[in-house]
Parts: sequence; C-alpha cells; structure tokens
Amino acid sequence: MRNWYKDGQAIDSISVDDRGLQYADGLFETIAVRNGKPRLWKLHSERLQSGSRRLDIQLPATDEILRSLMLAIDASGRKGQDALLKIIVTRGLGDRGYAPPQDPHTTIMIGLFDRKVGAAEHYQRGVAIRFCNARLASQPQTAGIKLLSRLDQVRARAEWSDSEILEGLMLDQQGSVVCGTMSNLFIVTDGLLQTPGISDCGVSGVMRQHLLAIASQNALPFETNTITPDNVRSADEIFLSNSQFGIWPVARCGSTRISDWPVTRRMRELLQGSGVIEGPE
Amino acid sequence: MRNWYKDGQAIDSISVDDRGLQYADGLFETIAVRNGKPRLWKLHSERLQSGSRRLDIQLPATDEILRSLMLAIDASGRKGQDALLKIIVTRGLGDRGYAPPQDPHTTIMIGLFDRKVGAAEHYQRGVAIRFCNARLASQPQTAGIKLLSRLDQVRARAEWSDSEILEGLMLDQQGSVVCGTMSNLFIVTDGLLQTPGISDCGVSGVMRQHLLAIASQNALPFETNTITPDNVRSADEIFLSNSQFGIWPVARCGSTRISDWPVTRRMRELLQGSGVIEGPE
Repeated sequence: MRNWYKDGQAIDSISVDDRGLQYADGLFETIAVRNGKPRLWKLHSERLQSGSRRLDIQLPATDEILRSLMLAIDASGRKGQDALLKIIVTRGLGDRGYAPPQDPHTTIMIGLFDRKVGAAEHYQRGVAIRFCNARLASQPQTAGIKLLSRLDQVRARAEWSDSEILEGLMLDQQGSVVCGTMSNLFIVTDGLLQTPGISDCGVSGVMRQHLLAIASQNALPFETNTITPDNVRSADEIFLSNSQFGIWPVARCGSTRISDWPVTRRMRELLQGSGVIEGPE
Repeated sequence: MRNWYKDGQAIDSISVDDRGLQYADGLFETIAVRNGKPRLWKLHSERLQSGSRRLDIQLPATDEILRSLMLAIDASGRKGQDALLKIIVTRGLGDRGYAPPQDPHTTIMIGLFDRKVGAAEHYQRGVAIRFCNARLASQPQTAGIKLLSRLDQVRARAEWSDSEILEGLMLDQQGSVVCGTMSNLFIVTDGLLQTPGISDCGVSGVMRQHLLAIASQNALPFETNTITPDNVRSADEIFLSNSQFGIWPVARCGSTRISDWPVTRRMRELLQGSGVIEGPE
C-alpha cells in the first residue's frame, strides 16, 4: 500500500515535463516514520537543505516541509503509526534543454509506504552480504548528496537474486569500498570503528551521521578511512546502517564469517539509548 | 509546442512509480526529424539498443520502435515536416527498492518538439563557448550511453546566462576536456582532426560517430585523444557537433579567437554530402 502527495493532493502521476524525469534534476530522502513522526528529521532536513543549496534548487523552510510531511502522514491514514516516507524534490517543470528555468517552481512529492519490519534474526544472527561489480561514479562535486539518480545502485542490486543476500557493497573508481547499495558500511578492526569517507562518491547516510555523533558523544574511538575490500574481509566486525533498519551486524561476506559483534552490539545499545529502536530488544 | 506519446496515446503525465523518475533508471535519444523522418536513425537506434543491453532494459526490435516514432510524428501533426524528437526509455513501473522488477514492462515515451532552426551566423561566423567548472562524473561502466541522468550537464549549463555563449565545455575528473553540455568537441591542430575519447565518461554522440565515419571514408586523418584545456586554447580550429545543428565552428573560447576554419569547412561539406544539411548553403 502506497500513497503519493503533491501540493496537499493525492497523486498517481506527475507531468512528463518534470525535470526529475527528464534529467534526474533533483534529490530525495527516505525517512522512517515512527508513531506518526519522521525520525531523525533534523539530519534528514539538513541533508535535504544542503543538497538543494548545492544544486541551487529552491526549497521551503524546514518547518514548512515538516508540516507537509505530517499532513501527508495523516492523509494516508497513518496518523500516529509507523511507515516509510520518501520525499522527492525536483527543479520542477521545464522546457527542453539543460538550462534551469528562469522562474522555477520546485516539485515536492511525498510518498508513504507500509513499514517493513526487519526479521529478528537479521539483528541477532547477522546478515549475509556480497561485493558488487557495479562501481560508484566518481563525482566529488556532488558526493554525499542523496541525488535522484540511483542508476549505479540499480546496476549493483541487479547483480544478485539470492534472497539470502541482503546487501551488496560497492567500490569507488579506485577500488576502495564506499557503502552498500542502500546502506553505509562500518568495520571494526583491533577495537577501532571505521567507516569509509564520503568525499569522492556515495551518500552521507543519516544513520551513519547519527552513529558517528553517538560514538563521539560516548568517547568511542572511530575513524573515517579509506577501506579496501581486504580490510572488510579481514575485519573483526562488520555492520551496516540505514535510516530504516538501524544497524545490521554482518555474519557473512564472501568467505568471511563473523559470529560475535561486541562493538556492534555496543553501538546498537547506544543507538537504542538515543531512541532509535529497531529489531528485537 | 510539444506532444508526448506512450503506447500510441497522447500523454501529459507518467506514473509517479516509474523508475525513470524514482531512480533515473533509463536512457534517451534526441533525434532530428527531417521531412517527417528521423535522421541518422541507424546510429540512434544502435546506441539505444546497446545502452538497453548494457542496462538490461528490454526493448522492442528497432523496426517496431521506428514504427512508433513515425506514428507519433504523424499524430503530432508533423507528417513530412521537421521536428525534434526525444525518446525516453525506462525500466517501467516498480515497487520501492533498487532491485529490478521481476516482470518489467519497459516504458517508452516519445516527445515531439518544434525544430529550432539555428541562426545562419552560427555557421558562418562561429559561436562563442566557455569552460565549465562542473565536471563529468567518472564512470567507465556506463560511458558512452545516453543515460537519463543529466545532472552534471544541468549543473554545467547553470553556470552562465550570457546568451552570447552557446555552449560550455566539460572536463572529466582528471581535468581533460570531454565534450560540451549538449555537443561533442573536435579540435584541429597542425591539420590533424582530434576528438576526446569516450571511455571514462561522456556521451558517444551520434553526429560525432557519423563525422568520424565520414572522415574515415574520405581518408581525412583523425585521432581520438586525450585533450587538455590548453590543447583547446591553442588549437587552430575548434568545432562542436550534435544531432540537431550538425557542425558549429567555434570563434571564441575564453581569450582564444578563431576566424578561419578550413578543416571544419571541409567536414561540413562532407556532412552535407552525406545528406545532413544544417545552416546556410
């Protein structure tokens, strides 16, 4: 069950002239709604506002956007409930040609989807992941932003159909590991928590940011580093983060097997302490 | 005046669930229609088919697509006339998530726009261009394909509003010149025709391919090369190509001024000999 809204109205379609379709001229956020409220809204809205500034797409003030989200949540019959919310922002309608319109009217679409509750075993016994051949484009000028164009991730996700594999890791053009198709990556080696830097490509995940802030507040040492596939394979712990599922420990990555995650567990406790509860208690 | 068609029907909108909007999961072609027929159709259809194969998007046979184009040209009231045609191909509707649908139905949209006839002076006295700061993402895995995502080009085109400047050159991540926002680049130095290779990023332009084939057939020496901004600035001749305007000589690029284009003129004669007539005779 999904519902889309634009300008307060339920919609099923958008103009074929929207620059989101014509040029992927826009960005998006995928937000966990819990008890009817967008979780980690501050981080989502900051990324959305900063991405819009970098692309020079005009956005309403954060409070106004939040009001629209709440209205859409209510209109979809999910008041006070859990859901997944996707907000798409584009430069709006345009004539043919790459030049931005003289008088642009930003398109804001809000989609509401049923929450998919993750299986308890993913949190307790860990998940299986793989490496993908599809790499991320190198583009420092837009790295970190959640751009509408997700073709690299689509190509990567198309590489496997084994339902046991829950995520694929993607490399950058230099062969370093950046993230999963829909998640950020953390590894622990000799007690040190590490996550790839997001300066050349990849998305600066909201849950990643939240986890790094938590680690910092709790004096848990971490580094943002260049991480090679071998670093991943030889890590003591691997975990994934995203805004919906929180933290998934990784039990299997190729021939690497992991069955204990002390630092991951500590991060999950801290995450729950911050109010982000996903998976079994 | 523009008209869009899908499945033989005039449309103004598309489903918000189309993966073209959600993920830029598709590609497109922009084709010159002359006397009611798509020009250089063979080259356009080859790029479209090869791009679809590389993205694993199912496409009808070339002849069937051509029939759809001709029907759209007629339906738009442009039978036997000139126009600009844009065909957009996406992986179709999908549920949320990057994984391709199990049973995908490719979306094919055909847009028809009035032809914009280029000013005679662009062909006779040359055009002014600039260098852009926005660079092309490095992505060898999809280089050459005309992907739906054009955000790099949008960012580049947004850098200038001076209507005297008709095109901006874009560099790759290494700082070499690749192409314009909507055209391919050729330079002539010491009589040698050169154009950047399209292996790391950029679009393998149909007019570029046609021109290279013509040069080859007429024993006109050329090379596909790494071209630096300095190579462009010190070139004896610069010209741009695209499927609509054919060839534009460049008269000005920053402080570089050029007022004679013998090799460019020769290429334009050969192009006209091949049936591609653009600009004054």
